Amino acid sequence: MSGRLLTLGIDIGGTKIAGGLVDDSGVVVDCVRRETPGHAIEAVEHAIVSVVDELCARASVEGHGDVVAVGIGAAGWVSSDRSTVLFSPHLAWRNTQLRADLSDRMSLPVWVDNDANAAAWAEYRFGTARGHDTAACVTLGTGIGGGVISAGRLQRGAFGVAGEWGHTRVVPDGRRCVCGNRGCWEQYASGRALARAGKELIEVAPAAASALLATVDGDGSRLTGADVTAAALAGDPAAIELVREVGTWLGEGMVTIAMIVDPSVIVVGGGVGALGELLLGPARERFLAVLPGRGYRPAAEIVEARLGADAGMIGAADLARNKLG
Amino acid sequence: MSGRLLTLGIDIGGTKIAGGLVDDSGVVVDCVRRETPGHAIEAVEHAIVSVVDELCARASVEGHGDVVAVGIGAAGWVSSDRSTVLFSPHLAWRNTQLRADLSDRMSLPVWVDNDANAAAWAEYRFGTARGHDTAACVTLGTGIGGGVISAGRLQRGAFGVAGEWGHTRVVPDGRRCVCGNRGCWEQYASGRALARAGKELIEVAPAAASALLATVDGDGSRLTGADVTAAALAGDPAAIELVREVGTWLGEGMVTIAMIVDPSVIVVGGGVGALGELLLGPARERFLAVLPGRGYRPAAEIVEARLGADAGMIGAADLARNKLG
Repeated sequence: MSGRLLTLGIDIGGTKIAGGLVDDSGVVVDCVRRETPGHAIEAVEHAIVSVVDELCARASVEGHGDVVAVGIGAAGWVSSDRSTVLFSPHLAWRNTQLRADLSDRMSLPVWVDNDANAAAWAEYRFGTARGHDTAACVTLGTGIGGGVISAGRLQRGAFGVAGEWGHTRVVPDGRRCVCGNRGCWEQYASGRALARAGKELIEVAPAAASALLATVDGDGSRLTGADVTAAALAGDPAAIELVREVGTWLGEGMVTIAMIVDPSVIVVGGGVGALGELLLGPARERFLAVLPGRGYRPAAEIVEARLGADAGMIGAADLARNKLG
Repeated sequence: MSGRLLTLGIDIGGTKIAGGLVDDSGVVVDCVRRETPGHAIEAVEHAIVSVVDELCARASVEGHGDVVAVGIGAAGWVSSDRSTVLFSPHLAWRNTQLRADLSDRMSLPVWVDNDANAAAWAEYRFGTARGHDTAACVTLGTGIGGGVISAGRLQRGAFGVAGEWGHTRVVPDGRRCVCGNRGCWEQYASGRALARAGKELIEVAPAAASALLATVDGDGSRLTGADVTAAALAGDPAAIELVREVGTWLGEGMVTIAMIVDPSVIVVGGGVGALGELLLGPARERFLAVLPGRGYRPAAEIVEARLGADAGMIGAADLARNKLG
């Protein structure tokens, strides 16, 4: 037995659950990944408990250390007391007392955070945003998540909803969003936006989209953002052009972040963030072209996240550790 | 001689300079108001020094107390070290070392802040935002200024530009803004927007705009936001309708503030803010209608500022006081 103290971080999205045992330097000692078992609250809670039990059992058998707290990074807006999921655009949580529900089922202390806040915290503590006093993290998956660090503190806002720029409006009367509104940024710069752009290309110009069509066996309706991402990374010019279009919207929305939060770095993570410079190049170009006061003020760096798909669990674990005092 | 310590706050906008001697509870002991003497840097600096000299002389003669520091609230983006005006959309400052320039001309310590940051700080310390841990202040004059308080601290951002939501884009390819971009929020929700809407009404439907036309002796080109504000406050139905239009845009942009900063209160100040519920009613209505997650999350209160035209000087004075340690 090493006797070191570990915390357990669990990242719950609409499609997957990732759990990790994390030490105090952000290293993932052990981890488990599962599909999210549908969107029902009870099933999701059951899956979380099962992941916790499995990792705790293995930590004991393998002698990794003592697990002392659990941090949840949930794909929803979490109350500022880190107990309640107020609303989830992608899952069934509506004022759900997630912390109390989980505490009833396990003996470890539990804290709940927004998944993108957890990822932002991880990048600030152990990733690309390290050393930046004011940092913003944009997590690009199906939608857009966000987190803000200022003066070394995660900014949760008065109600726990700070940094939710995915649902700021960039186009009046624009595309319908899962949140119910129209014109949200995440409808223009996300995995969903990439998929939509790809499907449109397939429909209107199938010849230009031949490589994309091949990835879905000729069935354009199956195309996902991940498919477009993979095709762009493989060098397909049509996919690269779609990424450029989405990257331009990404840069456009980053200006709003710059004008309100004014970070010295904007870190881009999540699955779509893996596109790296294919996406960040056009984003940076647009950002620098339209930043108000450009030429007379410093501009935030726009950089790729470092922790990849582990960011949410690492951040959730570290945020739970911080509550131990 | 009372021996109490006073600080001097100076609020410099595109059209007016207001200087005030302020005590540690935010009370303005004495004040001076002037027109801004054109936009030339030298002339503005000269006017500031003259206001400082006049107030210090009167403080001495009248025995108000000892003036120990000067705080400037400048209509521009101020570096995070509170020395340099990086850029002013409305005045001539471009990377201007305002603090050094003024320090050469006076013996008191000087600190420079953004005017709207100063106003936000005043409302947090002594006004409507008092008691709110996370607060946003929207200052509506010719344009839109803003300031954010979080965890009891004024958030300046990494480069001093935090809270500048007047220049976030609300309409792609929208109206041209003084910052050089298109579609900035302040082109839709500000004194300038009120004036524009009034001029349009006069041009297209002069009969409906008869009361507005009367305020400018039949010369629609002279109409200002203040004219529309006055007509609305006097009960002119046409002006009230214009205010409703601008108020709706105000509420629309407040959603962006809610999603990124997540304050418990949004305070509306500045000259246009004096419209009170004529403006805030429509703003609140729109805000509550489109806030993502509405019904599942608390909404920020939208309230009128308390300190009126004095907010900038009071805040600048108090921020300078805080540097005394």
